Amino acid sequence: MVNAPADELLALDRAAQDLLFRAARTANAFTDEPVDEAQVRAVHDLVRNGPTAMNAQPLRVLLLRSSAARARLLPYVSAGNRDKTAGAPLTAVLAADVDWHDRLPELFPHRPGARDWFTGDPAGREAQARFNAALQIGYLVVGVRAAGLAAGPMAGFDATGVEREFFPDGRHRVLLLMNIGRPAPDAWRERLPRLPYEEVVTTL
Amino acid sequence: MVNAPADELLALDRAAQDLLFRAARTANAFTDEPVDEAQVRAVHDLVRNGPTAMNAQPLRVLLLRSSAARARLLPYVSAGNRDKTAGAPLTAVLAADVDWHDRLPELFPHRPGARDWFTGDPAGREAQARFNAALQIGYLVVGVRAAGLAAGPMAGFDATGVEREFFPDGRHRVLLLMNIGRPAPDAWRERLPRLPYEEVVTTL
Repeated sequence: MVNAPADELLALDRAAQDLLFRAARTANAFTDEPVDEAQVRAVHDLVRNGPTAMNAQPLRVLLLRSSAARARLLPYVSAGNRDKTAGAPLTAVLAADVDWHDRLPELFPHRPGARDWFTGDPAGREAQARFNAALQIGYLVVGVRAAGLAAGPMAGFDATGVEREFFPDGRHRVLLLMNIGRPAPDAWRERLPRLPYEEVVTTL
Repeated sequence: MVNAPADELLALDRAAQDLLFRAARTANAFTDEPVDEAQVRAVHDLVRNGPTAMNAQPLRVLLLRSSAARARLLPYVSAGNRDKTAGAPLTAVLAADVDWHDRLPELFPHRPGARDWFTGDPAGREAQARFNAALQIGYLVVGVRAAGLAAGPMAGFDATGVEREFFPDGRHRVLLLMNIGRPAPDAWRERLPRLPYEEVVTTL
């Protein structure tokens, strides 16, 4: 067993490890510096390569850039998340498209009948939409950090209310909100404890 | 609007972008080279820093290293995934702990009563376990690639059967299987199409 420090066993260099995971933190306050569309496109261009089951890619991203759009969101955000959401340069509403199977003829073309496997199973589609979109949100957190930005994911909000307000088509489930920007000097507290290897991983 | 190539707008260098996303692929065949425990520990040490709601970290990883353990899994794996799972140097069973709230006193110590908010809500706990563990699986895919390894996530298996076989305590939900190793020369087909920015991102 090698006793090298964990970061030396990785192919990814230490600076990138720090940028994406070790020094990166969930930001609770942001500077006024804007996040422009070219940056968001660059993040998408990177993380869209991440794998999903049947290449379904159910994640949909609604960017609230205008103050009018942000004002429509705030009533559904928990009190503790409201000020930082109002002050972030950009807020993303992250949703799963439960009708992802409609895209399978293009996205999974080597199985021409795949779409039909799911037409009669809305509950199964929703479960897969939620799972695969959550995977993609994991990639997105990494991608936002890869752009040198800080992500501020937030689970404290009224998902049903946000769906009614922004996705009246009924085919989207809102999973998470995420503020995006440059972290302000007071953006975070101390890092919370992480579970050690022995409590997460078991080997048989 | 800057017209620079997308990769130049990122802080992460091009080699790391390739390692984690652009050149990385889901592997369907692996070499015999083993994946040792030190590598898995290094991956965990990196990705455990990824954020989860309330710092809950519900993902649990069961590594099937012995051939006896692998043989217990194979009957529950879909026919198309069986050979590559039998042949991979390591297979991880990725599960969510639905009793994650029991760890909140240590993991979210600044809210001493947080555990009690969830004791009477098993359905809500399961939904949060599934969502946050899926986020963590997204980080894990990136982490496996950061170690210079290929991940082979697989959704085609009998989750109830795997839970009964490996998690008889009833408190874990199996979300995904993942083969891990060095890709064989014939590890993948051409990359499937990805959705363009305009079909994923909307701005208000």
